[in-house]
Amino acid sequence: MTAAASRHMANSFDPARAASLPPADVKLIARRDRAMGAAYRLFYDRPVHVVRGEGVWLYDTDGDAYLDAYNNVPVVGHANPVVQQRVAAQLGVLNTHTRYLGDDVVAYAERVTGLLGHGLEQAVFVCTGSEAVDLALRVARHVTGRRGVIATSHAYHGTTAAAAAISPSLGPNNPIPDEVELIAAPDLASESPAEAAAALASRVTSAVAALRARGHDPAALIIDSVLSSDGLQGTEANVLREAAAAIRAHGGLYIADEVQSGFGRTGAWWGFPSQGVEPDLVVAGKPMGNGMPLAAVFARPEHFDRFGADMRFFNTFGGNQVSVAAGQAVLDELTERGLVERAGVLGASVLNELRGIAAAGNGVGAVRGSGLFFALEVVDDAGRPDAARASAVVNRMRDARVLISASGRDANVLKIRPPLVFAEEHAPILLDALAGALHH
Amino acid sequence: MTAAASRHMANSFDPARAASLPPADVKLIARRDRAMGAAYRLFYDRPVHVVRGEGVWLYDTDGDAYLDAYNNVPVVGHANPVVQQRVAAQLGVLNTHTRYLGDDVVAYAERVTGLLGHGLEQAVFVCTGSEAVDLALRVARHVTGRRGVIATSHAYHGTTAAAAAISPSLGPNNPIPDEVELIAAPDLASESPAEAAAALASRVTSAVAALRARGHDPAALIIDSVLSSDGLQGTEANVLREAAAAIRAHGGLYIADEVQSGFGRTGAWWGFPSQGVEPDLVVAGKPMGNGMPLAAVFARPEHFDRFGADMRFFNTFGGNQVSVAAGQAVLDELTERGLVERAGVLGASVLNELRGIAAAGNGVGAVRGSGLFFALEVVDDAGRPDAARASAVVNRMRDARVLISASGRDANVLKIRPPLVFAEEHAPILLDALAGALHH
Repeated sequence: MTAAASRHMANSFDPARAASLPPADVKLIARRDRAMGAAYRLFYDRPVHVVRGEGVWLYDTDGDAYLDAYNNVPVVGHANPVVQQRVAAQLGVLNTHTRYLGDDVVAYAERVTGLLGHGLEQAVFVCTGSEAVDLALRVARHVTGRRGVIATSHAYHGTTAAAAAISPSLGPNNPIPDEVELIAAPDLASESPAEAAAALASRVTSAVAALRARGHDPAALIIDSVLSSDGLQGTEANVLREAAAAIRAHGGLYIADEVQSGFGRTGAWWGFPSQGVEPDLVVAGKPMGNGMPLAAVFARPEHFDRFGADMRFFNTFGGNQVSVAAGQAVLDELTERGLVERAGVLGASVLNELRGIAAAGNGVGAVRGSGLFFALEVVDDAGRPDAARASAVVNRMRDARVLISASGRDANVLKIRPPLVFAEEHAPILLDALAGALHH
Repeated sequence: MTAAASRHMANSFDPARAASLPPADVKLIARRDRAMGAAYRLFYDRPVHVVRGEGVWLYDTDGDAYLDAYNNVPVVGHANPVVQQRVAAQLGVLNTHTRYLGDDVVAYAERVTGLLGHGLEQAVFVCTGSEAVDLALRVARHVTGRRGVIATSHAYHGTTAAAAAISPSLGPNNPIPDEVELIAAPDLASESPAEAAAALASRVTSAVAALRARGHDPAALIIDSVLSSDGLQGTEANVLREAAAAIRAHGGLYIADEVQSGFGRTGAWWGFPSQGVEPDLVVAGKPMGNGMPLAAVFARPEHFDRFGADMRFFNTFGGNQVSVAAGQAVLDELTERGLVERAGVLGASVLNELRGIAAAGNGVGAVRGSGLFFALEVVDDAGRPDAARASAVVNRMRDARVLISASGRDANVLKIRPPLVFAEEHAPILLDALAGALHH
């Protein structure tokens, strides 16, 4: 096992290689290790030292520009001026919590739930996707009076204790408690969408039985609507629909994790509608404030009514006026610039190009895409997952100044997920760099 | 039981009273309930509708000014211009995560751990105090290989599932799992500091035995260094010292919760040194970014080394450049304006005045203070806790446009905790309003 593999993260920097870096970076990494400790990881064999961003571009200490084809947080662009101006203006006026009455958070809750529809009429604001997942689990367990949760076998849902407990992609040292049952995600490389949907529902039913055998009734099934960490296995319509019906049939709730798929990533505002599911609870985060910490749980009113009647919930920074100003600016930018629609149209075009690269015989197996989120399976000559070559491709692209990463249960899936300001003129840069890195 | 009491929160608005409010507020509260649900609570019989802040002042929709003697988040003042400018400037440059190499977060980690000392050499950044508590518990449980946690019987440590599990002040519907044992906080109204310290240590030892009887060895004892929610029972030196020694003797870690007491509140940078304890882990949050979501766990390197060798930890927004810019601005303001020292000097003077008010026979029992954090026990003629009168005092002060709140296990403790920009000229306004509300 390589040192990187022992760190249980695709595309993780191996500190043993630090000596080959520029002296200033070696020194900074040493200071970082000393002051921030061993739990932090850097990306790439040669970490990128970023000092500035603008739109889809990040710039390093030498002034070199990197095309950002990875970051889903700065959805309306690095250093977006509308976000900057609104946040700066609000910081000069008021930034306080929700125990005083205020218009801003109410107006934002109304706007964002209006974009959700599907009976998800209420929002509770927190600061991170992890907090949102954690709260959704608390709500699901409280309203059902049950403890069991079902998640997919390479899922990532967050880092609080409760969220990490349903995040097996954190590696073998991350304990999964006996009230959690993991099920294999669909495998769209080997199953048709209809087969995948039926098989997933069948695994939910088996998981319910397994939980009950350990004394836990099922409170919830939680699935990332595009199954990102499982290798972007949620790109086909209705693959999750029967699984959602199965958990409901057993009295559990369905939680749609939209931290990855929400706010336009897939070419639609949310990932779950194309899956044909009607979630009880939805969690959202990363792109919501373009990097300002803003996240939320959305729910059918009966769930928050029940939870709220018994419990109070308060997040000091959740829904503060400054985070809400960022959230409103993101919605304005996405809407006024037509970024959601473009993610769909441009995404389809890029996906087509990626399939062309794969068909040309570059050691790429399945290619999947949903809006501006793409996954390419890097395989060896026998068609088996090839994590080492995926890592080499990611690092060659970094050297060509195009930022992507790798993920999936076998760490062989190239993960391409640019900010939604990624436009037509950026696609050739990405595609050329990818083709070059694959041909190497 | 009143409706407010049934909501398990001191100074909670009772929605049944909404009809007596201004029509615009009635309408806004209805919209808020519809879009944000029942878990949200407002303060006061008549909620304050705030639209602007500046320094220690909040302003309502009529332009009326309220002296903020409650909020510990905007520690360097509402709408602080230094924070505003630094955050705005950074938003125009870069705001990304810690998997790229960057100077800002390292420099901040070095600065803030330098202020901590006591061997707490490493920082991991998150967004909220709840996330910090949750991570500290994960680390403590991982490094000890144990599950049991001891907390005080009216503690508040946060709202993630793991943090809520050690937060009995959330009320009787908030489940406390069997791996958590609660111990009574010191009662400085009836015990000398030395008696309180010995008794607390004895309760820790009993709690360890109780946990072991249920099959759980103790991973940690966590205590808010000023015991805020327990009614500010941590104002005397060394009350916690023997308890910390007791948990260590049983192989558990000591976690100092400095979310309330950190960053100058007590007239010192941190609350734990005056308690004579050497924490294994420290959690901080609220004032750290003056309202920008920023929080941290600080630790002795051996704990993060062990945790980080086995587990990766990543918080997307934790330690981003914008939050760090806010954190640096807060440290600059606290330092350059001498706010920590002033909190000590002015706090001692205000405490003396508060004791004078109590001695004048106003139905006030014990008065405690630590820097700019004060607690007054409102009692009836027989000296028993009087929650109803405490609530009336809080609401009369609100009507006199001075904002405080109530807390404590009997909801009878007036909680006064202004931003640290509270200065000499503001003290008479607070004291006059308090005397008036008590005399009523």
